[in-house]
Amino acid sequence: MPHSVSYGPTVPTPQAISVLRPLPTHAVRLGTGGLLGDWQDRNAAATLPHCVGRLHAYGNLDNLRRVTGDFGGPFAGYWFADTDVYKTLEAALWELARSGGSSEFVTGTAELLEKAQDPDGYLNSYFQVDHRDRQWAELPSSHEMYSAGHLVQAAVAAARGDAHAPAAQQILAVARRFADLLVRRFGPDGVDALDGHPEVETALVELYRVTGHRPYLDLAARFVELRGHGLLGPDSRFRQRHYYQDHQPVRDADEATGHVVRQVYLAAGAVDVAVETGDTALLRATERLWESAISAKTYLTGGQGSRHRDEAFGDPYELPPDRSYAETCAAIGGFHWAWRLLLATGRSRYADEMERLLYNGIAVSTAIHGTAFFYSNPLQLRTGHNGSGEDAPAQRLPWYSCACCPPNLARLMASLHTYTATGGSDGLQVHLYASGTVTAGGHTVDVTTAYPWDETVAITVTETTQAPWTLTLRVPAWCTDARLTLNGAPAGVTSPHQGYLDLTRTWQPGDQVQLVLTMPPRLVTAHHRVDAVRGSVALMRGPLVYCLEQADLPRSLSGNVLEDLELDPGRPIDVVTGAHPIAPVTLLTPVHVRSGPDDELYRPLAPDALAPPPTTSPAAVPAIPYFLWANRSAGAMRVWIPLAPQKR
Amino acid sequence: MPHSVSYGPTVPTPQAISVLRPLPTHAVRLGTGGLLGDWQDRNAAATLPHCVGRLHAYGNLDNLRRVTGDFGGPFAGYWFADTDVYKTLEAALWELARSGGSSEFVTGTAELLEKAQDPDGYLNSYFQVDHRDRQWAELPSSHEMYSAGHLVQAAVAAARGDAHAPAAQQILAVARRFADLLVRRFGPDGVDALDGHPEVETALVELYRVTGHRPYLDLAARFVELRGHGLLGPDSRFRQRHYYQDHQPVRDADEATGHVVRQVYLAAGAVDVAVETGDTALLRATERLWESAISAKTYLTGGQGSRHRDEAFGDPYELPPDRSYAETCAAIGGFHWAWRLLLATGRSRYADEMERLLYNGIAVSTAIHGTAFFYSNPLQLRTGHNGSGEDAPAQRLPWYSCACCPPNLARLMASLHTYTATGGSDGLQVHLYASGTVTAGGHTVDVTTAYPWDETVAITVTETTQAPWTLTLRVPAWCTDARLTLNGAPAGVTSPHQGYLDLTRTWQPGDQVQLVLTMPPRLVTAHHRVDAVRGSVALMRGPLVYCLEQADLPRSLSGNVLEDLELDPGRPIDVVTGAHPIAPVTLLTPVHVRSGPDDELYRPLAPDALAPPPTTSPAAVPAIPYFLWANRSAGAMRVWIPLAPQKR
Repeated sequence: MPHSVSYGPTVPTPQAISVLRPLPTHAVRLGTGGLLGDWQDRNAAATLPHCVGRLHAYGNLDNLRRVTGDFGGPFAGYWFADTDVYKTLEAALWELARSGGSSEFVTGTAELLEKAQDPDGYLNSYFQVDHRDRQWAELPSSHEMYSAGHLVQAAVAAARGDAHAPAAQQILAVARRFADLLVRRFGPDGVDALDGHPEVETALVELYRVTGHRPYLDLAARFVELRGHGLLGPDSRFRQRHYYQDHQPVRDADEATGHVVRQVYLAAGAVDVAVETGDTALLRATERLWESAISAKTYLTGGQGSRHRDEAFGDPYELPPDRSYAETCAAIGGFHWAWRLLLATGRSRYADEMERLLYNGIAVSTAIHGTAFFYSNPLQLRTGHNGSGEDAPAQRLPWYSCACCPPNLARLMASLHTYTATGGSDGLQVHLYASGTVTAGGHTVDVTTAYPWDETVAITVTETTQAPWTLTLRVPAWCTDARLTLNGAPAGVTSPHQGYLDLTRTWQPGDQVQLVLTMPPRLVTAHHRVDAVRGSVALMRGPLVYCLEQADLPRSLSGNVLEDLELDPGRPIDVVTGAHPIAPVTLLTPVHVRSGPDDELYRPLAPDALAPPPTTSPAAVPAIPYFLWANRSAGAMRVWIPLAPQKR
Repeated sequence: MPHSVSYGPTVPTPQAISVLRPLPTHAVRLGTGGLLGDWQDRNAAATLPHCVGRLHAYGNLDNLRRVTGDFGGPFAGYWFADTDVYKTLEAALWELARSGGSSEFVTGTAELLEKAQDPDGYLNSYFQVDHRDRQWAELPSSHEMYSAGHLVQAAVAAARGDAHAPAAQQILAVARRFADLLVRRFGPDGVDALDGHPEVETALVELYRVTGHRPYLDLAARFVELRGHGLLGPDSRFRQRHYYQDHQPVRDADEATGHVVRQVYLAAGAVDVAVETGDTALLRATERLWESAISAKTYLTGGQGSRHRDEAFGDPYELPPDRSYAETCAAIGGFHWAWRLLLATGRSRYADEMERLLYNGIAVSTAIHGTAFFYSNPLQLRTGHNGSGEDAPAQRLPWYSCACCPPNLARLMASLHTYTATGGSDGLQVHLYASGTVTAGGHTVDVTTAYPWDETVAITVTETTQAPWTLTLRVPAWCTDARLTLNGAPAGVTSPHQGYLDLTRTWQPGDQVQLVLTMPPRLVTAHHRVDAVRGSVALMRGPLVYCLEQADLPRSLSGNVLEDLELDPGRPIDVVTGAHPIAPVTLLTPVHVRSGPDDELYRPLAPDALAPPPTTSPAAVPAIPYFLWANRSAGAMRVWIPLAPQKR
C-alpha cells in the first residue's frame, strides 16, 4: 500500500515563496463517472499498460539490458530512448501511489537501472555501449541531462509515494548517484555547460525538495543562470540559439521562442528555482514570458508551436490551424508551467490555462480507448489530406518513433488529481472541478458535478474543524455569469483576488455550496492579427473548444465538404445532450453551404463580393468537443468556421 | 563568337508533336532598358560571376579537384554539390552564346570534368573519393542521376551554343560518356531503378535532341514509366512515396504532391518524353497534373510549396502566405514545365503562367543588385519575425549551404530571351512582351515597350517575306480590355485560340502594330477554401503582384505595424509613376488603421463585431511590386491585405 503522506509532482518547500500549497495525493480523490476521474482510470487500465508493452516491443528496455550485458542486439530508437522508460516508470509510480496495483514493472525496472548504472553514477544506454567516446561531448544535442532529469523525476515520484518500498529506495539511490555526478561535473567546481534540452532544472529542484540536499537546487539555479550566454554554440545556418533558448538570459527574456517543449520545460524549472531561492525577479521574468506566449503564440486549445520545422513557436500571431504543431508534450509542459505559476502566485489565470489545456490541447491527444495518440494536434484537417506517416497523420497512432508524448500523458494522468485543489488549515482552494472528495487541514468536502458537460458544481462539507476557514472556488475567465448559493440561499462572498470566490465561515458538516457556472454556447473570434482565422469563429461551451467533423455532416449535406460550410451567426446554436454516439453534449450549429462559380483559385474582387454569396438552404451540423475528434473514420475537421456574410 | 544557329533550352525535334517551335537564340534580342533585358544584363554582370566566385569559395570546384588528386582537403557541402558547378556551367554557356564574353570558367571547368571522370563515364566527386562503396547504392537519396542530369543539361547548352569550341566538345563528350553509362546500367538491358530526385529525364530527352541518339530518349521514357511502382522503397514513418512522386504512375497521377521541385522536374521531363514519343496520353496526364497544382496548390505569385517540412506541396487550398515555402527552384521548374506545355499545346494559359512566375515568384528571389537570393519566397513577413538563419530569413542571403537556387536563376536568366517568342516561316508568336527584336522565318519585328510598367506594346515590322504570315500576340488572362491597332486603325484580328490575337496579312516593312493591354489596378480575392487569406485582397497591376512593405509606411503611420492596416475598398487606388526610390510604378493604397481594445488573443464575438471596428482617420500607403520587397531595411511585408469592413 502506498505511503500515507504521499504527494504528487511539484511540492514547494515550506520556505518557498509560493502562495498556494499542494495537497497530499490522497487528500484528493476523483470520483468515477466524471471526465477527469474517467481519464485517470483509462490511463491506469489502458494507456499505462500500453506504454509498458511498447517499451518492451520497441527495445527501450533491451537498450538498458545491452548495458548490463543481458541483450546482444543493436540499440533501438533515438539516443534519448531511455527517457520513455523513465517517464513510464514515473507514471507507474504515481499510479501505484494513487491506486495500488501491480508493481512488477517498477520493481523490474528499478533493478535494471541499478545494474546498468556506471560506478560514477552515469546512466545512458546510448552512450554507455556504442558511444563511450562521445559521452558528455555533444551536450547541445545529446539529451544526456534531459535524460537524467527524467530519471530524477521518476525518483521523485518514488520518494513521494511509498518511499520505503525497496524499489523506490533503489530508484532514488540511482537518481541521486546520477545527480551527484552532475553536481561534481557541472556544479560550481565543475565546467560551465548546458544540455540543449532543458528538463534537468525542474527535476533537480524537485530532488532537492525530496531530499533537502541543497546542491541540487544550486545546480538547477546555476543551469538557469548559465543559459543565454552562448554555451550551446553560436547561431548556425540551421540551428539558432533561439532554438535552445540560449540567445538571452532567462531573466531578461521577454518572448517565448524556439523549440516549444524546451521553452516551457525551461520556464517551469525557472519557476521552481525562483520560488525556492526567493528570486522574485526570476519569477516575474517567467510570468512575462508566459504572457508573451499566451497573448500572441497560443492556440485556442492552449496548444503551442506553430511550425513543424524545429517544432517551434512561430512569430507573434502566426497561428495556422491546419499546420499547428501544438505538440502533446508542449501542452503537458505548459500545464506544468502554469501549475507552478499558480502555486507561486495564486493567480487564477494560470488555473484557467491548466483547465484550457486539460480539456483541449492535452485531452485531444489521446483516443477514446486510451491506446492511440496524436503527437502534433492540428486545429484543422482538410479534405484530401494525405494522412499517412508520423508528421501529420489524419488519425492517432499507437506509437511514434520518437515516443515522448504517450508516456508523458501517462505520468500526467496518473497524478492528475493532485493538480485540482490546494489548501491548508486556513482553507481549501478548488481550481479544477470534478466529482470527488478533497481534504485539507482537517476539513473535507464532497464535490458532485458533471462538469464540464453540466454547469452545476455541488459541494458538501462532510468534515470540518471548529475554526472558520475559507472555501475558495475558481470562476473561470470564460464564465461571465457565476451563481453561488450556500444552503440554498445566495451566498455572501468576497472576491479579494480576481477569478476566485471566497466563502469564509465557521462551517458545519452538511453545509451545501452550489456553484453554477453558466455555459451558453459562445462564438469566439481571434485577434485581428491572426491572419489564419480571419473572418472565422470558433465554438466553445464552458472550457471546451468545439469543432465540426466530416463524420457529423447530416445526410442532406453528405455530398459537401466541410470547407464549404459557413456558420450563420444570425441563427441560434442549440445545446443537445445525449444524442450523439461519442459526444455527451453537442452544439447544433447553423450553417450555410457556400456554392457558386468558385472554380478559380484567384479572381478579381467582384463589385458585389462583399455581399452574401449564393448559399444553399440553411442546415445545422452538430459540433463536437474538439478533444473527441478523429475517433471515427478519418475525415476533415475544423475548429475555426468561416462566418457567413450577414444579410444587410 | 557563338555559333550562328545556336538554340536555347528545350528544342523539340521536327518529329515531336509540339504545336509551337522555339526560335534560335539570336533570333530574339532583348533591348536594354526593359525589365527582362535588364535582368539578363544583371545576370551576366553580377549573378553569374557571383556564382562562379562562390563555387571557388565554397569548395565545389575543389571537390572535383579531390578526384583528380589536385586538392587534399575534405569534401565540402552537400553530396550533390557538383550540381552547382553544372548549373553555373550551363549558365555560362548560355551567356557565352548570347553575348560572348569570357570563356575562362567554361574552359577550366571542362578540363576539370574530363580529368575527373572515371573511365566508365561515372562522375560524382562525393562518391568517387570517400564513398566508392556507396556508389549507385542509395539511389533514393544519392542524387547521382540528378547530378548526371545537370551535367547533361550543361552539355546541351554547350552543343546548342558554339558547338565547335573545344570546351563545348569536351563537355558534350563527358556528358555523353556518363549518359552512355546510364543507358548501359539502367536501360532496358540493365536494372530497374530510379533516382529519388527527378531531373535526368528532361536532360536525357534534350541530349537525344542534340545528338539524335535514340537510347537517351528511350531511357528517359523508361524512367518516367518506372516511376510510381515503389522502386524507391515503401512508405516509411518519415518518408512517403508521395515525396518522390513514386506512389502512382505518372500517367495515372491526378494531383501534384510531395517535394515540389521533384514534382515539377518530373512533369517537365514527362512532357519532353511525351512530345518526342507522340504519347498524347502522357501529355494529357501532365496537363491534368498541372491543372491540379494551378487550381488549388499555387500561390498568387506562381510559387508552389506550402510547407517547409519536406519542401512540399500542401493539401488542396493550404496556402499560408507567411509560411509559403515557394522555393525559387520550384518556380524555375514550374517555368520550365509551363514552357514545355506551351510548346506542346500552344495554349496561352501556359504562357500566362510563365509570365506570372517570371515577374513574381522568380523575380522576387534575386536582390536588386543581383548577388543575394531568397531560397524560399514568403508572401508575408510579420513584424517581430526572427529572421536569421537560412530557413526563413528576413532578407536575401548571398549564398546557401544548399545553393541550388542561385545558379538555377543564372541559367534561366542567361537563356531568358529564348522563352519570349516562337515561330517559323508561317508566323511569329510573341508570348512575353519586352523591348527587343524578334526574327522568324525571314520576318523581323522590333518591339518597343516599357511593359510591365506601361500597358502599350508597339511592334514594327522591319523585314518581311512576300508571302502572308501571321503575327500572333498573347493577351494575358488578367487583361480584360486589350486594344489592337494596325498602322493607327483598329485591327481586324481573328482569335482562333483563346488568349491569342492573330493578325494574318501580307506585311510591309514599316507596318506598325500597337497592342494596349490596359492595366487598371486590380483587387484580387482567393477561393473561399483558402482559409489563410480569407477576408483579404491582393493588389495587382498587369502581371505584377504588389505588396505593402513596412519601409513604405508614411510618417503619419510610422508608429503603426503593417499588421494593423486594412485596405479600404471604398476609395480608389492611384497609380503613381516615378515617385518611389525603388519601384517605377506604385499603387497608392487607401488604408485604415485598426485600433481599439484588442489586447486579448481570443474574445467572444461581440454583437457589433460584424460592424466596422474603430479605425483611425484614413491614410494611403504606396504598394510596391512584390518582387522588389526586402531591398531596403528588413521589415514586415504582406501581399494579402485585410479588407476593412465597409459601412452599411
